[in-house]
Amino acid sequence: MKLCVAAIQISPKLGDLEENLVKTCTFIEKAIEKGARLLVLPELSNSGYNFENKQQALDCSEPVPYGPTVKEWEKIAKRHSTWIIGGINEKDQEKLYNSAVILGPKGYIGKYRKLHLFAKEKLIFQPGDTPIEAIREDNFSFGVMICFDWAFPEVTRILTLKGAEIICHPANLVLPYGQKAMQIRSLENHVFTITANRVGKERDLTFTGQSQITDVKGNVLAKGSKSKEEIVIAEINIELARNKKITPYNDLIKDRRPEYYSFLVR
Amino acid sequence: MKLCVAAIQISPKLGDLEENLVKTCTFIEKAIEKGARLLVLPELSNSGYNFENKQQALDCSEPVPYGPTVKEWEKIAKRHSTWIIGGINEKDQEKLYNSAVILGPKGYIGKYRKLHLFAKEKLIFQPGDTPIEAIREDNFSFGVMICFDWAFPEVTRILTLKGAEIICHPANLVLPYGQKAMQIRSLENHVFTITANRVGKERDLTFTGQSQITDVKGNVLAKGSKSKEEIVIAEINIELARNKKITPYNDLIKDRRPEYYSFLVR
Repeated sequence: MKLCVAAIQISPKLGDLEENLVKTCTFIEKAIEKGARLLVLPELSNSGYNFENKQQALDCSEPVPYGPTVKEWEKIAKRHSTWIIGGINEKDQEKLYNSAVILGPKGYIGKYRKLHLFAKEKLIFQPGDTPIEAIREDNFSFGVMICFDWAFPEVTRILTLKGAEIICHPANLVLPYGQKAMQIRSLENHVFTITANRVGKERDLTFTGQSQITDVKGNVLAKGSKSKEEIVIAEINIELARNKKITPYNDLIKDRRPEYYSFLVR
Repeated sequence: MKLCVAAIQISPKLGDLEENLVKTCTFIEKAIEKGARLLVLPELSNSGYNFENKQQALDCSEPVPYGPTVKEWEKIAKRHSTWIIGGINEKDQEKLYNSAVILGPKGYIGKYRKLHLFAKEKLIFQPGDTPIEAIREDNFSFGVMICFDWAFPEVTRILTLKGAEIICHPANLVLPYGQKAMQIRSLENHVFTITANRVGKERDLTFTGQSQITDVKGNVLAKGSKSKEEIVIAEINIELARNKKITPYNDLIKDRRPEYYSFLVR
């Protein structure tokens, strides 16, 4: 089964929920026009990233799924029968989470709260408290991880073990490693990955762009520029992610020896 | 603490224990002359790799640690106060293991039996049955994994969690992925890796050489050619592997969320 997927590479404006809503919806519509059926937006697409303090982040957060951004994205997902995974600055009471919302043709599916917070995010957001789960749809399945989760091979591995064929990866990457690491995440799990990275600068941070879609061998099928807003799009053949054979004798999942891995969860 | 380490890139001769013993000892002595204190030899350095059947493999196997190859290597390790990690076709009763022997200044330290067998190895060798353990010496610690173990991020992760600062990786790589994956293994664990890959051809297999030593950021400190026998050598600063910080706020090990990882061992 073939699926057209897209990473939406944009530069959200720090603190401006309304402008970001217009921009994300415009890009989502454009990607759908180009034929994309599953779309990934960057981390914290509704709010921007580099807050000076928690109050500034609170001021542009919203509840999930009842906030204005998620409601608009949900309408588009339903109208076009499309899947949208996008990073959201999520407010829950007075707590903030660096989350990704997951929307499909029937509307809200769920959310993932980033398990591994990066740098000063720790001063603003709660550590994620949602389990690592795959989403099974009729013809394919996918999982969600956010940005710095790339550094923890455990995340993509668990998503794969739970059946994810595509890894949706909203990101605001600033280190020079994430894209290369995601190629290895693809290869070691035989999954597709869609890294939607943002571009632009916020105070001392420059985001690295180069959003990418990788195939199950870690090859880059499509790649964005370093600094332009754009849609990175590719057609993937889901069947390839169902076959975990790397040689006729080797299955990357069945060959695991979990009886020797107990130290991983100590 | 600085340590000079080496990957010995050679082409063992299939089935010829005696010639391989001479060759490995010659290269070990050369590497020691160049200043190396910790040396890694390729997988199955005593026997070659691409056996046509189990009998052919049995004919050039030996017990560990009392076989002729290990005894000679052990003498050199003791004489020069050096660590040697080398791949051995190990015979245990009528069973064969794709093993690595671990030798130090005081002699035999232990062995590791490859947990994840590659391709037709499954027709010849028993799956490894030794736990994933780090070896702690006075001034540094290291772990051992063999060739296709690269595809399982669990292995390097566990070695790191158990304290390994250097990953010794005897290999007979034929796929084009192992070297790149090892760069990411270094990065995600902040450890050094020494991949000693063989060169040459055996029947339908061409080994990819390009033995490499990586630093804790995944940079290649030294790299071998694709087909020449040679010694790949670098000086590493062990302290760097003790610091797991990738940002002032992020520690690659302490930031793990093992309470969310239980699916890895199911």
